[in-house]
Amino acid sequence: MKHQHSKTSVSDALSFLDSQLAARKPDTEEISVLAANDRVLAESVFSEVNIPSFRRSMMDGFAVCSADVAESQSAAVILAIAGESFPGREWQGTLRSGQAVRIMTGAPVPEQADAVIPIELVTVQGCSVTVSQPIPPGKNVARPGEDIDEGDIVAVAGRRLRPQDVGLLASIGCSRLNVVSRPRVGLVITGNELLPAGTRPTGHRIADSNGPMLAALVERDGGTVIRDGLTPDTPAAIRDALSDALQGRADILLVSGGSSAGDEDYAPDIIQELGELPIHGIAIRPGAPAGLGRAGRCLVFLLPGNPVACLFAYDLFAGRAVRTLAGRQSQWPYRTVSAVLESTLRSARGRTDYARIRLAESQAIPIAVSGSSVLSSTTKADGFLLIPADVEELPAGAVVQVWLYGN
Amino acid sequence: MKHQHSKTSVSDALSFLDSQLAARKPDTEEISVLAANDRVLAESVFSEVNIPSFRRSMMDGFAVCSADVAESQSAAVILAIAGESFPGREWQGTLRSGQAVRIMTGAPVPEQADAVIPIELVTVQGCSVTVSQPIPPGKNVARPGEDIDEGDIVAVAGRRLRPQDVGLLASIGCSRLNVVSRPRVGLVITGNELLPAGTRPTGHRIADSNGPMLAALVERDGGTVIRDGLTPDTPAAIRDALSDALQGRADILLVSGGSSAGDEDYAPDIIQELGELPIHGIAIRPGAPAGLGRAGRCLVFLLPGNPVACLFAYDLFAGRAVRTLAGRQSQWPYRTVSAVLESTLRSARGRTDYARIRLAESQAIPIAVSGSSVLSSTTKADGFLLIPADVEELPAGAVVQVWLYGN
Repeated sequence: MKHQHSKTSVSDALSFLDSQLAARKPDTEEISVLAANDRVLAESVFSEVNIPSFRRSMMDGFAVCSADVAESQSAAVILAIAGESFPGREWQGTLRSGQAVRIMTGAPVPEQADAVIPIELVTVQGCSVTVSQPIPPGKNVARPGEDIDEGDIVAVAGRRLRPQDVGLLASIGCSRLNVVSRPRVGLVITGNELLPAGTRPTGHRIADSNGPMLAALVERDGGTVIRDGLTPDTPAAIRDALSDALQGRADILLVSGGSSAGDEDYAPDIIQELGELPIHGIAIRPGAPAGLGRAGRCLVFLLPGNPVACLFAYDLFAGRAVRTLAGRQSQWPYRTVSAVLESTLRSARGRTDYARIRLAESQAIPIAVSGSSVLSSTTKADGFLLIPADVEELPAGAVVQVWLYGN
Repeated sequence: MKHQHSKTSVSDALSFLDSQLAARKPDTEEISVLAANDRVLAESVFSEVNIPSFRRSMMDGFAVCSADVAESQSAAVILAIAGESFPGREWQGTLRSGQAVRIMTGAPVPEQADAVIPIELVTVQGCSVTVSQPIPPGKNVARPGEDIDEGDIVAVAGRRLRPQDVGLLASIGCSRLNVVSRPRVGLVITGNELLPAGTRPTGHRIADSNGPMLAALVERDGGTVIRDGLTPDTPAAIRDALSDALQGRADILLVSGGSSAGDEDYAPDIIQELGELPIHGIAIRPGAPAGLGRAGRCLVFLLPGNPVACLFAYDLFAGRAVRTLAGRQSQWPYRTVSAVLESTLRSARGRTDYARIRLAESQAIPIAVSGSSVLSSTTKADGFLLIPADVEELPAGAVVQVWLYGN
């Protein structure tokens, strides 16, 4: 068996990755505003209209000329009700002095009126309304453009759209938006021992867990999976799968399994044949066989076959690429909490360790496992912590930051 | 115009809502494990298999009988390489004393071997391997069921599935899962002044913003929108839309607009005709015209037509129902931060106020708006705070909790 090269540090691997990502401009696409929630705007949106686009009543009440009721405090003024203005069914007449128009919130204020007296402040009797306090001009009338002026910037490029952004954009007449495309991610899952995900394991074969886990991670991070098939562990099959994914214009390729330096690990050589694999072997545990490379404009990630290492290597490197190409922030989408470490954790200097943690009150309890393939350690855990490369020991009692897997 | 009844407090409205929700059992459905990420398990899953299901090597190295190398520290032991065991291609022979089998991580350990010596600890020469330190029995061999025993509970009912849960479930042969159904939410957006979302506003008409905003909020909270059309502001059209949504077996109906006590507000009467509307008028600002009721097994929410009030009333009441029926936690999906209030906020005793907040460093700056219809206040804001019913003033300098809209 070949021996592994000296391992790259996490920070060097991230530097390589970030330089690759910086050189790539995310793709964009035009979509309906109705499908735009949680997508990332590719270009800023300016309003082509005023909102409101007309003088709009902010209250239910009566539209009046404020001059008519200026003296109402000393002697109540009685106005004749000339008509009604509803949203979408405005009053068509001309308001004259001594008249008022009944009006609803959101309705157009008649041209000659300059204020709206709230319904609570008047007395209505038949076709007349009694006003006993003056109202300043402009009161309860929204001016055109009061919310948004024509030409205002409504949402800036790079914004991850929220429900209210979608509402606002829809209300200014934006029907289509330019957003960052979801990065297209190909999965190449290798291993002769693998049965399709969801199959009951029999004999010496196991069912694939990395495929469905990676697909879920990619979707979570804003990408879309374009190929998720199992691939036999032969050079020809792996070469076919890789070229196929590349020709399918994958932005990112995740190759799981066959990435260590054992006899049957064909993927590293094939990646070097189709592109380059400058980083192979990273100082992390678990996940040391991970690698980073590229083929054409496609970023290629070698992820270890064992599921915990696969999850860690995805989260450290591949997820960052998916999120960045999706226009999102590169950071982990995990919330953090502080907790007190229950028992000492040790690592080797230069190596970054991934420790699954169960939280009990404010205690962070490391989950003891005998092998890194134990995926249940990540489902029993509430989250994880990292032992950074420059730390050899996190002593019991230390306050640590725990990233939470869940919502 | 009719006058509004005395308003219900937020806590009374929530008590009514929670009692309605407690009486409802969420629907469930069976889906593929591959589509199960972020869904909520409706029943606990027990493993029907051992994982691993066979004695599995945890290292690349040599499978041996530990007794053969017990004395290797005093004098190196040379074993004959009898064959190779790969994942998915196990060795078929019978290991005899004095022999070793080359083995890869994940491969089945030959029946007669009881330990795996890592490749790093031996010297290979041609067809023989030299061992110079003993290995305890069982070392580097995962026993069947070491990760998961047959009958173990793998994921409990109520769990919101994470990517690694999906991986794990797929690997134990679960192809289908019982999950909580997405609550079906009908939208009834009324208003004669409304043009479809994305239409450029013209004349005195405005484009709908509540429909797309509510659809995005419902999807965020785990629901699915089954009807999102605009509805004319006539009793017949509203009655048709409501019965239509009810016959379409909506779990939740959101009625936006036409919910205040003005002349053209037909929805409250029609809801009472088709069901009941015990709460109409809630002590919140904005959003006082909001209401809570039901028709058959469908929860009905009256949401104010003005977009900010609509957002607030959705988040306070309707979103809680969507999340609960989706099997999720009822709490807001917003992160919180603490910040120092920049300027004093006042409210009325008994009323809960919704203040949009911009964050600048650790300062919480209220966004001043003249009207509650100003949706841009929620897109300019980083988040919001509540002024609770029993608070009349939050003074400048107070440390407040701000809920963040964004990710």
